[in-house]
Amino acid sequence: MYRQLGVIGCGLIGGSFALALKHAGLAQRVVGYSRTAATTALALRLGVIDEVASSAAAAAAACDIVLIAVPVAATEATLKEIRASLEPGVLLMDAGSTKRDVVDAARRALRERIDCFVPAHPIAGKESSGVEHAEASLYVGHRVILTPLPQTDPALLKRASSVWQSIGAEVRLMSAEQHDAAFAAVSHLPHLLAFAYFKSVAGQPAGDEFLALAGPGFRDFTRIAASDPAVWRDILGSNREEVLKQSQHFRAALESFETAIRSGQGEALEALIRGASEGRADWRMGKLPDA
Amino acid sequence: MYRQLGVIGCGLIGGSFALALKHAGLAQRVVGYSRTAATTALALRLGVIDEVASSAAAAAAACDIVLIAVPVAATEATLKEIRASLEPGVLLMDAGSTKRDVVDAARRALRERIDCFVPAHPIAGKESSGVEHAEASLYVGHRVILTPLPQTDPALLKRASSVWQSIGAEVRLMSAEQHDAAFAAVSHLPHLLAFAYFKSVAGQPAGDEFLALAGPGFRDFTRIAASDPAVWRDILGSNREEVLKQSQHFRAALESFETAIRSGQGEALEALIRGASEGRADWRMGKLPDA
Repeated sequence: MYRQLGVIGCGLIGGSFALALKHAGLAQRVVGYSRTAATTALALRLGVIDEVASSAAAAAAACDIVLIAVPVAATEATLKEIRASLEPGVLLMDAGSTKRDVVDAARRALRERIDCFVPAHPIAGKESSGVEHAEASLYVGHRVILTPLPQTDPALLKRASSVWQSIGAEVRLMSAEQHDAAFAAVSHLPHLLAFAYFKSVAGQPAGDEFLALAGPGFRDFTRIAASDPAVWRDILGSNREEVLKQSQHFRAALESFETAIRSGQGEALEALIRGASEGRADWRMGKLPDA
Repeated sequence: MYRQLGVIGCGLIGGSFALALKHAGLAQRVVGYSRTAATTALALRLGVIDEVASSAAAAAAACDIVLIAVPVAATEATLKEIRASLEPGVLLMDAGSTKRDVVDAARRALRERIDCFVPAHPIAGKESSGVEHAEASLYVGHRVILTPLPQTDPALLKRASSVWQSIGAEVRLMSAEQHDAAFAAVSHLPHLLAFAYFKSVAGQPAGDEFLALAGPGFRDFTRIAASDPAVWRDILGSNREEVLKQSQHFRAALESFETAIRSGQGEALEALIRGASEGRADWRMGKLPDA
């Protein structure tokens, strides 16, 4: 049981974490801060937080657990602002979708207090953002990746795993480098491809006519192209090396398909498609290689 | 009311057309042929067809309406086989996903009988193929594109429109060229990208670990990568010019995103993403540009 949870960034992710801890009986009290006053006012009215803090530093003060759930690019400034307010022994986590840049920012911003920081990436979300969509069950059955630093206090890492498990999440540990490489491949690149694909069709003279003929395959393939521009600017920008590396892998694969198409090699083309088709048919969300 | 419908290729598409015409009281009798005897046996048992024909020519004989629902690459051979059996005044349609190659094949195969042919592409399907998944309502609310030739008998074109409308479909007319350009953009290219993307991730040394971390965005983006290899070999091969043209458009768009990422131009990147994101959020399936 935590005495006081501080949530900095009371949106869908931060708000759901607060509700989940309350419902699980893990937090006595929640103090929240958001850059926009209307957000914390709504969070208070919805019972997501118990008190509005006047600043990030005030939200972090006197807490034994703090979650930073702000856009990735705002992480460093937030950490700098709260460093002097952190209690000894506090468990400090973020919720960013990229981890190398967060770890680098934390080293610069937290300095000797780096031991209290457990970088976290909950793989959960909804089509709709905002505290009004927060729910206590958001993390149930979802993965949370923790990417501890060598300096991270092992007792705090254990408490971090325990708190996510207590609200229904499945915890995996990996390095920030492994995390960023993996998510560049399975999340960041698909977003980039979906953005670029939608733009390439819509930008053609007959684009509107084409789009009017698109069906269910197109709908699913481009769903992630509707994602939030500011969030994805930050993610693609901060994980750029891994994203560009994955894009190169993709271009090479596309090239092999195009070569088979261009040269009329039906058998080679079918073999390429079959590899993808059978692999995808066999894939299940959350299926581990060793499972 | 048609006296006899001949269905060549009794799979999901052909079988559903037969069921729909029966349910609508539009066909007195259905004769079916498939390359695999087990398929027609099952179609007969399920009441999809009333009689099994011993050949494509036998299925087409004595019919006043014929639907060819075979893989695109088998269209020409099928048309050649049935030409001599076609009754005067018969309405002959196909159901292929590409149209220029079908029109070319029909010119070569049907010669002076080309006037009876109305090329059709019903934009409907399901995850699962095969006559056991056929249903009378498959075409309800879906689009059917007809791409008549200059030689197509106008009376037959009218009857073709009418029969599809009677089973719940919405008919659009366009040229085979317009059809193939549009579907290269909104269907064929997304399939190619999904195949290539899945292959590029799965083919990496850490591919299995990456795939184990993939979530709902990945699931939807890659759903079409599980499509049938033989069907898509034919589609990508027969519409290769338009597909490769669309792929070039896509590569140019991807390049512009990558340039913004590589050079750290956050504002330019956000503007590019915003264009795609707002466009996709505004898109609705079946929304016409003039609607």
